[in-house]
Amino acid sequence: MWLRVTTELEMNLQVASPMLLLLRPHSDAHQWVASDRYRVTPDIHVAEYTDRHGNLCQRLMAPAGPFAVHVSADVRIRPEDIDVTDAPFVPVEQLPDEVLVYLLPSRFCEADRLGARAWEIVDGRRPGHEQVTAISRWIHEHIRYCPETDPAPISASEVLNRGSGVCRDLAHLGMALCRSLSIPARLTVGYVHGLEPMDLHAWFEAWVGGRWHTFDPTQAQPGNGRVRLAYGRDAADVPLYHLFGPPAIPTRMEVSVEPLTPAD
Amino acid sequence: MWLRVTTELEMNLQVASPMLLLLRPHSDAHQWVASDRYRVTPDIHVAEYTDRHGNLCQRLMAPAGPFAVHVSADVRIRPEDIDVTDAPFVPVEQLPDEVLVYLLPSRFCEADRLGARAWEIVDGRRPGHEQVTAISRWIHEHIRYCPETDPAPISASEVLNRGSGVCRDLAHLGMALCRSLSIPARLTVGYVHGLEPMDLHAWFEAWVGGRWHTFDPTQAQPGNGRVRLAYGRDAADVPLYHLFGPPAIPTRMEVSVEPLTPAD
Amino acid sequence: MWLRVTTELEMNLQVASPMLLLLRPHSDAHQWVASDRYRVTPDIHVAEYTDRHGNLCQRLMAPAGPFAVHVSADVRIRPEDIDVTDAPFVPVEQLPDEVLVYLLPSRFCEADRLGARAWEIVDGRRPGHEQVTAISRWIHEHIRYCPETDPAPISASEVLNRGSGVCRDLAHLGMALCRSLSIPARLTVGYVHGLEPMDLHAWFEAWVGGRWHTFDPTQAQPGNGRVRLAYGRDAADVPLYHLFGPPAIPTRMEVSVEPLTPAD
Amino acid sequence: MWLRVTTELEMNLQVASPMLLLLRPHSDAHQWVASDRYRVTPDIHVAEYTDRHGNLCQRLMAPAGPFAVHVSADVRIRPEDIDVTDAPFVPVEQLPDEVLVYLLPSRFCEADRLGARAWEIVDGRRPGHEQVTAISRWIHEHIRYCPETDPAPISASEVLNRGSGVCRDLAHLGMALCRSLSIPARLTVGYVHGLEPMDLHAWFEAWVGGRWHTFDPTQAQPGNGRVRLAYGRDAADVPLYHLFGPPAIPTRMEVSVEPLTPAD
Repeated sequence: MWLRVTTELEMNLQVASPMLLLLRPHSDAHQWVASDRYRVTPDIHVAEYTDRHGNLCQRLMAPAGPFAVHVSADVRIRPEDIDVTDAPFVPVEQLPDEVLVYLLPSRFCEADRLGARAWEIVDGRRPGHEQVTAISRWIHEHIRYCPETDPAPISASEVLNRGSGVCRDLAHLGMALCRSLSIPARLTVGYVHGLEPMDLHAWFEAWVGGRWHTFDPTQAQPGNGRVRLAYGRDAADVPLYHLFGPPAIPTRMEVSVEPLTPAD
Repeated sequence: MWLRVTTELEMNLQVASPMLLLLRPHSDAHQWVASDRYRVTPDIHVAEYTDRHGNLCQRLMAPAGPFAVHVSADVRIRPEDIDVTDAPFVPVEQLPDEVLVYLLPSRFCEADRLGARAWEIVDGRRPGHEQVTAISRWIHEHIRYCPETDPAPISASEVLNRGSGVCRDLAHLGMALCRSLSIPARLTVGYVHGLEPMDLHAWFEAWVGGRWHTFDPTQAQPGNGRVRLAYGRDAADVPLYHLFGPPAIPTRMEVSVEPLTPAD
Repeated sequence: MWLRVTTELEMNLQVASPMLLLLRPHSDAHQWVASDRYRVTPDIHVAEYTDRHGNLCQRLMAPAGPFAVHVSADVRIRPEDIDVTDAPFVPVEQLPDEVLVYLLPSRFCEADRLGARAWEIVDGRRPGHEQVTAISRWIHEHIRYCPETDPAPISASEVLNRGSGVCRDLAHLGMALCRSLSIPARLTVGYVHGLEPMDLHAWFEAWVGGRWHTFDPTQAQPGNGRVRLAYGRDAADVPLYHLFGPPAIPTRMEVSVEPLTPAD
Repeated sequence: MWLRVTTELEMNLQVASPMLLLLRPHSDAHQWVASDRYRVTPDIHVAEYTDRHGNLCQRLMAPAGPFAVHVSADVRIRPEDIDVTDAPFVPVEQLPDEVLVYLLPSRFCEADRLGARAWEIVDGRRPGHEQVTAISRWIHEHIRYCPETDPAPISASEVLNRGSGVCRDLAHLGMALCRSLSIPARLTVGYVHGLEPMDLHAWFEAWVGGRWHTFDPTQAQPGNGRVRLAYGRDAADVPLYHLFGPPAIPTRMEVSVEPLTPAD
C-alpha cells in the first residue's frame, strides 16, 4: 500500500526562536520512504540528527515573522498485524534489554499509579495481546475522544479523571495501563489514512509475543494505512515541533493522506 | 582522591520478581573504578547491559525470601569544578544534538509549567552558571530537605507546592527550573563523601559553558567527593532498584563512603 | 549552494540475491537533503537501517533479471573549509573517544606498515593540517589517478607499489599515511560537482584542529560542491552497493551532479 | 562455573606514549563479573569508554620508564553451546541489521578473496553450523598452531599461504572463510581455562541459527571455560593493548585462569 502524506505548518513568530521538528518519516523495516520533500520558507539552514529512539530530528532557527514548513513523502507500508490476537505476554525477565525502558514510568504515563485500575480492566483476559486489546477498547468506550481539545498534554491519570482527551492523551492512558501490567508500551506518532478529522495522529504500540504491536484507542479497530513519524516513551520524547521561546500557535496546519499507485 | 563506596541492600520478597538495579559505578573520563565487587545472595544468575544513558544495568530474577545485594567499589575521582562560576549560557541553537533531550520535560520535571517562577528566581543573574547557582541556592533556602520523607517520587511542581522533599525531589525541581530557562539539566545519582545522614544521593548537572557542571540543592555548596552511579532525564530513568512485582521495602539498606589511599 | 545529485544503476542478475546499498544521502550538520527520490524497479520491498557510522543502508532482495535503482536528491551544502591550513595536530590523548577508531589499521589501510614513508613525506611540515595537505599533494603528484581501473579495491601499500589507482585507492593511501602519524582519517564517499569523468567519488577526511577536514588526493585542491553519501573506516565499511551472491557488473551506471537554485 | 582470570602486563617505555587497552571484561548476558580489580603502576589517571562493539576501552598516558597493568576478575560464565550442531544457515535477507557488518571484509579477513577455498572445505555439509564446524576443523588440521610466532598480525590469505599462525591468525582465517559463505563471523578475545601454554586467546563466533556460536580452530573441540574481553570485526578492532608511539614489547606478560568456588 502506497500513501502520499503531507503536512503544511505555518507560524508567525514574534521573535526568532530555535526550533526542533520531527516531521520527516524515515524508512525502516515497516515503511519505505520512496521519496520525500521538506521545504522551509524562508530558505534558512536546517540541520538534522537522529535521536536515541531513531527518529529524525530537524533543528533550525525559525526567524521572526511568517515561517512555513511543507513536508511530504511517498511511502510504501506493510499491512498492520491487526489480527494477531493471541500474542502472549512476555515475562519481564525475558524481555530484550532495549525494551525495558518502555516499562518504566515517564512524563505523561505514571505507570506507578495505575495498577489497580489496569487489573480491573483486563479481568479475565489472557496475558498479552488480549489484555492490551481490552485496555484499548475500554479507553475507546470510556474516554471521550475530543480531537479539538486544548493541546497542552496532560498525564494518564489526569486523562482518566477528566474522562476525555486528544489522541495523544488516550494513547498515554493506554500505555500507562499496559506498563502497570509489565507490558512495555511506546507512543507512536504519524499519519493514518482515513482519519476524521484529518490531522497528525498519535497511537501506541505494546510489546507482546516478541515484538511491537499496534493499538489505537481512538478507533474501534486499529486500521491499516499508518505512516510513522516518530516513536518515544511518551509525548515528551516526540515533540512534533517544539519551539524554544515564546509560545506560538500555528496560523495554519494542514495534513493530508492520499493513496498512491506506484506508477504515480 | 580515592573513595571506597559500599551499598548493602536486603529485601524479603513474598514472590520471586524480576528486578532491575543500577548499583554498579562505571569508569569514565571523570571517575576511575580501580576495583569493584558485586555480590548477590543467594548466588543467582545476573545479566548486565548498558542503557541509552550509558548506565550499567543489572537484571536478575530475585527469589522469594531473603535476598541481598552487596556492592562496593574503589574509585578515583577528579575534583569537581565547583569554582567555575562564569560558564556562560549556551543558546539552544548551539547545543550539541545529544544534549537537546535534557531540555525537554520529563516524568518528574514539568519544565513546561515553571517558566515564570524560574525567571523570578534568576532575576538579575547573568545567563548560565550564575543562573543555575541562583536556582540551586533558592531551593536550598526555600525547600526543606527531609532525608526521611516518603520515598514515592513527586514532580517538580508538587515539590514546589509541598515546600519539602528528599534529595531527588530537590534535584527535580532544580532541573525543571533550569530547563524552563532553556538550560539542559540531568539527574545524577551516586555517593557523596561526608553526607549526613549517609545514603545514596541524587543531585543534578546543568549544561553551561560547553559541558556538564555539578549542582546540589541539598548543600550550601556542592562539595567534592562524588562517585556517580547513573545519569538520566529524571528519576524515572535511573531506578537504583526497580522491582517488577509486588512492592517491597528493603529490610536493610546501608551505604558508606570512606576515603582511601591508593596503597590500600 | 544547492545541488541535484542522481545515480542510475542497472544490473541484470542471474539469480535473485540479497543486496545492500548505501545510495541515499542523509541530512546532517553539513548538508540538508531538501528532497529525495529512491526508486527501485521492479517495485520490490526495501528496508532501511542506520549503521554504526550513521549511514543509511538499504536492504533488498534483488530479483533475477533486469533490476534498476534510480536515486536523486536536492541537497543544500555548506562551503568546505578548504582554506583552514593551520588546524593543529591533536595529541592522541586528547582525541574524543569516538575518533580513536579512525586511528587503527583497517582492511585497506595498513597504517601499521607505512610509518617510515609517512614521515618522509611530511618532513618539515607543521603537525596537523599541513602534514595532511602534504600527504594529499604527494599522492596527487606521485600516484597516477586512473578512473577506469579494475574496480577490486587494493590496500594502501599495494596502491603505493602499483603507483596508480582509482579515487578510493588514493584515499586509502592518504588515510593509511595519516593514521601512521596518529592523525585519525576516515573515508568519505559521495558526489563532487564538476568531477571529470563524472562518477561516484571517494575522498577522505582527517581529524585535525578538533574536527574533520576534507582532503581529496585526486585533485590539486579539494574543491567545493561535495554531497556525502557515507563515511567509514575504509571502503570495506561503505560498499555503495554490495551483492551477496554471484558477482554482477552494472549494465549501466550513470551519475550526475547539477547546480540548482532553491526555486527549482 | 566461576573463574578467576588475571593478566599482568609490564613494559618499559622510552618515551611517554598514549595507550589504549581492552583488558577489562564486562558483564553481559553470558558472563557475570562479580568483582574486578584494575591496577596501574605508577598510579596515573585512566579514563574508560565503551566502543561501538560494546567493549570497555581504557585510555591512559603511559609514562616513560617501567609501567605495569595488573587486571583480575572473578567471573561466572554460562556453559558454551558446543553441542548445537544443527543450527541452520540464516539467509542474508533475514539477518538482523546489526549483524550485516560481520559479513563484510575487514583488515585481516579478505572474505572477498576466499570463496572458492571455502566451498571446497564445506563440500557436502549442511548450510550453517555444520559448515562452520567443517571450516574450524579444517583449519585445526591444516594450519599449524604456533603460539610463539611473531606477533604481527597477518591476513587470512597470508595465513593460508604460510600454513601456520597464532590463535588470532587461525581465527581470522576461519572468519574470512565463513564470511565468504555469507555466514557472519566476529573475533572474540579473552581467556580460556586450561589453555596450554596459558595466554590471552583469540577465537571466533559465527552467526547461525539466529545467534552467535563459539568456534576455536586451535582446539579439536571448542571447550568450556571462556571469559570474553572483547569482540570485533577482526584484530584491528580489538587491540588488547595498543601503543601510539615507538613500539615496545612487554617485559613481562603473565596470564592465569583458575577455577573458583563462589564462596571464595
